[in-house]
Amino acid sequence: MNQRIAVPLPTAYLLLNHGPTVLVSSAHAGRRNVMAASWSMPLDFDPPKVAVVIDKSTLTRELVDASGEFVLNVPSRQQAAMTLAVGTRSGREGDKFSSVGVGTATASMVAAPLIADCLAWLECRVLAEPANQRNYDLFIGQVLAAWADPVAFSDGRWHFPDQRRRSIHYLTGGSFFTTGDRFEA
Amino acid sequence: MNQRIAVPLPTAYLLLNHGPTVLVSSAHAGRRNVMAASWSMPLDFDPPKVAVVIDKSTLTRELVDASGEFVLNVPSRQQAAMTLAVGTRSGREGDKFSSVGVGTATASMVAAPLIADCLAWLECRVLAEPANQRNYDLFIGQVLAAWADPVAFSDGRWHFPDQRRRSIHYLTGGSFFTTGDRFEA
Repeated sequence: MNQRIAVPLPTAYLLLNHGPTVLVSSAHAGRRNVMAASWSMPLDFDPPKVAVVIDKSTLTRELVDASGEFVLNVPSRQQAAMTLAVGTRSGREGDKFSSVGVGTATASMVAAPLIADCLAWLECRVLAEPANQRNYDLFIGQVLAAWADPVAFSDGRWHFPDQRRRSIHYLTGGSFFTTGDRFEA
Repeated sequence: MNQRIAVPLPTAYLLLNHGPTVLVSSAHAGRRNVMAASWSMPLDFDPPKVAVVIDKSTLTRELVDASGEFVLNVPSRQQAAMTLAVGTRSGREGDKFSSVGVGTATASMVAAPLIADCLAWLECRVLAEPANQRNYDLFIGQVLAAWADPVAFSDGRWHFPDQRRRSIHYLTGGSFFTTGDRFEA
């Protein structure tokens, strides 16, 4: 597991503001899973909230429905193959942590694990919105704790140290964009 | 106005899948506005839906509430200063199209204008979800028509021709990331 430092909650939205692809990790009653999600976004500053789409067919959906919790993990470019693998396999076919080789660490506020070597982590509790969940597969979560690897994010600022440790943005068919260069408008 | 070609609706999600910052344009009863939004995402494939956060304090909110329509426009890096300007000024203080210098074109399905020189456009009709709108400033829209500048997106694929014509991802304080290089995982 890489290093992590706490991100103050009012600035946690900055971890997702640029639209990176995330991993959704979940756990309930001794079962756990991880999947990839392109469709997530911040929803509020303070207390921070997030929105994420979790399809009804997934094991993640079952675990999130049962636990009322999830973690959004921000993977780096060096984790793109892993992100694609956990995004295309189903947890119903076998434990992805062992088959794909995904390390974890214990979260502080939720049972869902933190995915090792990610750039940032948001521990979330589901805000019950049954109509959104049923009609749109849309989950709204309140961020209870947020963390970042200080090599990539500290003091409210992303500062990717190299090409391998940048966030990524999924397209389709196994293709991603890396997060590009920072500039001032 | 730059060139635009129709994007088949089942692939319209690809215009937002990588999480770019968008411009939200709106119009009602002879008034119109444009604002920037970092918080948007695809919500479904076919028929395509999107989610976007529109704060209660904005003129855009008033126009979207009244018209039930909006357009999500994907600006390019060469439009970053304009994006920042329309994201920091309020339409209540004066017409941003003239003060910032924002060109427009007529949309096909909605009264809201298309913002000139963007990379892509999604014309949307609001799906009435009053609780989401009230509690989270969260709007869900069905995409009625989608367009892209073929220089940057065609045949379901982004292919930015140069650094200036890439999409952008807002951070905070006037800083953006450009969309970086494409790679296969």
